[in-house]
Amino acid sequence: MKLTIRKDELNDAIQHVSKATSPRPTIPILGGIKFDATHQGVTLTASDADISIQSFIPVEDGDLVIAKVDKPGSVVLPSKFFVEIVKKLPSDEIEIEVREHHQTMIRSGSSDIQMLGLDPEEFPVLPTIEESESITVPGDLLKSMIRQTVFAASTSEQTPILTGVLWNLHEGELKFVSTDRHRLASRVAPVDCDPSYRFSNIVISGKTLVELSRLVPDENCKVDIVVADNQVLFKMNQVLFYSRILDGTYPDTSKIIPKEFQTELVLHTKKLMDAIDRAYLMSREEKTNIVRLATQDDGLIEISSSSTELGRVTEHLEVKQLTGEPLRIAFNSKYMLDALKVIDSEYLFIGFRGAMSPIIIKPTDHDNSLHLILPYRTTG
Amino acid sequence: MKLTIRKDELNDAIQHVSKATSPRPTIPILGGIKFDATHQGVTLTASDADISIQSFIPVEDGDLVIAKVDKPGSVVLPSKFFVEIVKKLPSDEIEIEVREHHQTMIRSGSSDIQMLGLDPEEFPVLPTIEESESITVPGDLLKSMIRQTVFAASTSEQTPILTGVLWNLHEGELKFVSTDRHRLASRVAPVDCDPSYRFSNIVISGKTLVELSRLVPDENCKVDIVVADNQVLFKMNQVLFYSRILDGTYPDTSKIIPKEFQTELVLHTKKLMDAIDRAYLMSREEKTNIVRLATQDDGLIEISSSSTELGRVTEHLEVKQLTGEPLRIAFNSKYMLDALKVIDSEYLFIGFRGAMSPIIIKPTDHDNSLHLILPYRTTG
Repeated sequence: MKLTIRKDELNDAIQHVSKATSPRPTIPILGGIKFDATHQGVTLTASDADISIQSFIPVEDGDLVIAKVDKPGSVVLPSKFFVEIVKKLPSDEIEIEVREHHQTMIRSGSSDIQMLGLDPEEFPVLPTIEESESITVPGDLLKSMIRQTVFAASTSEQTPILTGVLWNLHEGELKFVSTDRHRLASRVAPVDCDPSYRFSNIVISGKTLVELSRLVPDENCKVDIVVADNQVLFKMNQVLFYSRILDGTYPDTSKIIPKEFQTELVLHTKKLMDAIDRAYLMSREEKTNIVRLATQDDGLIEISSSSTELGRVTEHLEVKQLTGEPLRIAFNSKYMLDALKVIDSEYLFIGFRGAMSPIIIKPTDHDNSLHLILPYRTTG
Repeated sequence: MKLTIRKDELNDAIQHVSKATSPRPTIPILGGIKFDATHQGVTLTASDADISIQSFIPVEDGDLVIAKVDKPGSVVLPSKFFVEIVKKLPSDEIEIEVREHHQTMIRSGSSDIQMLGLDPEEFPVLPTIEESESITVPGDLLKSMIRQTVFAASTSEQTPILTGVLWNLHEGELKFVSTDRHRLASRVAPVDCDPSYRFSNIVISGKTLVELSRLVPDENCKVDIVVADNQVLFKMNQVLFYSRILDGTYPDTSKIIPKEFQTELVLHTKKLMDAIDRAYLMSREEKTNIVRLATQDDGLIEISSSSTELGRVTEHLEVKQLTGEPLRIAFNSKYMLDALKVIDSEYLFIGFRGAMSPIIIKPTDHDNSLHLILPYRTTG
């Protein structure tokens, strides 16, 4: 392999794929980035147990010559050092030449780097995915759907399936659900696909979705998603992102979501969030994060928390709408804040069925998301 | 104590003094901020074993009413929670009222906070400093003097005196020196003071100087410095900063600095830094940070490093001036980078007395700073 390539484009591609290299690889080859150079361009691939990322750099982009491949070929280069050195090279052009035993010479301006490359034949093969059906989602929509659900996924490996986000597709609507048994977040959106196409119980690791989210460009961009037996492939511009599907059956959460409430509140999202944030600061000192919410006779609600060592925070909040019975309830304020932060509606609805039943939080502008938090059973 | 105060000014003062509260105080009172309210203004004080910071908020600043003190008095409030809650309070004005047993009510808009205050009589008394003599240093100069020396102070508590920076004043020149036995940094500058005033062996903790540096405003500001028996007081606008002087005698470093060299180089600071930075990336993989520098027959110098697992980086650099004997030397590239980063001159001078003697690095534009690095004794 012998080629000359522009530093900026190589650096971008490396930054993309390096997200899939293991920081502490079980075998050295998994700590590397694979280069495949042809006369069409250079393909970079990195892979760990859960995800694989591939980025293609074409030799030309319009009038701009990005790479010149003198001799096609392949090599695997250790990722950590390579990722850092490329952006620091002195010239805008980088020459890469692979010699015997995968020994690789990298030249740029006054820098000469000799790297001990690894055998590309030993690099794991990417999963084969048959592209029968696919769905297409705007990049920014996919990013918000991830942001609005992934925080509620479990971080405990005791129940691996709950560390993922559940994806279901039904009648052209894609639905994400996540829960850690204490709270639940869900988000639904229409997507571009064959209306008869459907899937269920596709569970993708929360961590993987956060990585994917970072790779999706902020500008207008469409993501094509192909769901196969045990892999999902995300296609964006020149980048392919493969994720493993988590094994197991996701619990049925539809039955725990109450539809009718004893008390219903409509509140200003930002004001509620700020009040709970202040109460959270005090509750955090007690490690429990317990904050109490109570309706008052004057139509306000009171939000409060206390700490034996520090004191007490009491907040009063106006209510836009209050129907049903008086209420006193306690909950984990951190969970409540997580949900409030992703609600993109000026006012929100909170429904309660009593001090022991799940709390439901929804935007008032639309019906595309729902949050559930289990209350604390407290005395007094 | 009862007062009303503007949130922004209170928040600024709290941010200043809270740097001196211990995150894990040995006694609870040291985790607090002391409030002293008079009809002139509010004084905030925080203190740990090494430093004390005091900030004064006047009741008025020109036409602007900042505080209204209804009832003078004092209280100590736990810092950690207080620091975070103040900036999150809903109104621009905050009312603070101390009741029996130091119980403190804080009201702002719809927020009511009750804090368990502590007895101000138990708060440590600030050191008394007689202001016989003082020196005056522009804030930005003091900040650069700290930045250009503090990195070379030791981080090991085995020799506590070396964790400090040595200050000497002689004939109106203030000199900072720091060393961790492997490298040394020094910086000298003329300061505003009585030319007959002098002091020596004043050693101030490097960590303390970094904290001080953060407090010095970026805009035009003068810092008055008063050196007493075992304390130094820094006075800036409304902020007083007290630092303990480290016990012990700082080693005499003047004799280890060579004045004559076998090889002298003048190099472009930025180009040398970039080349060593690339070599450092490879050397870091070996944990030793060893980088080699060698003069070549063609007038260039070669900078190189190698790792048994990764390969080798070789850099060639033009020399602006080279006099003396050919040279091969190895050094800790991290130490070299630390020194190069703070040299504010386009070209620098490096002097060598051979592979075993200290390396001297100086700016070429002026004579106010000097860096020394001990070489590695390597084979080959």
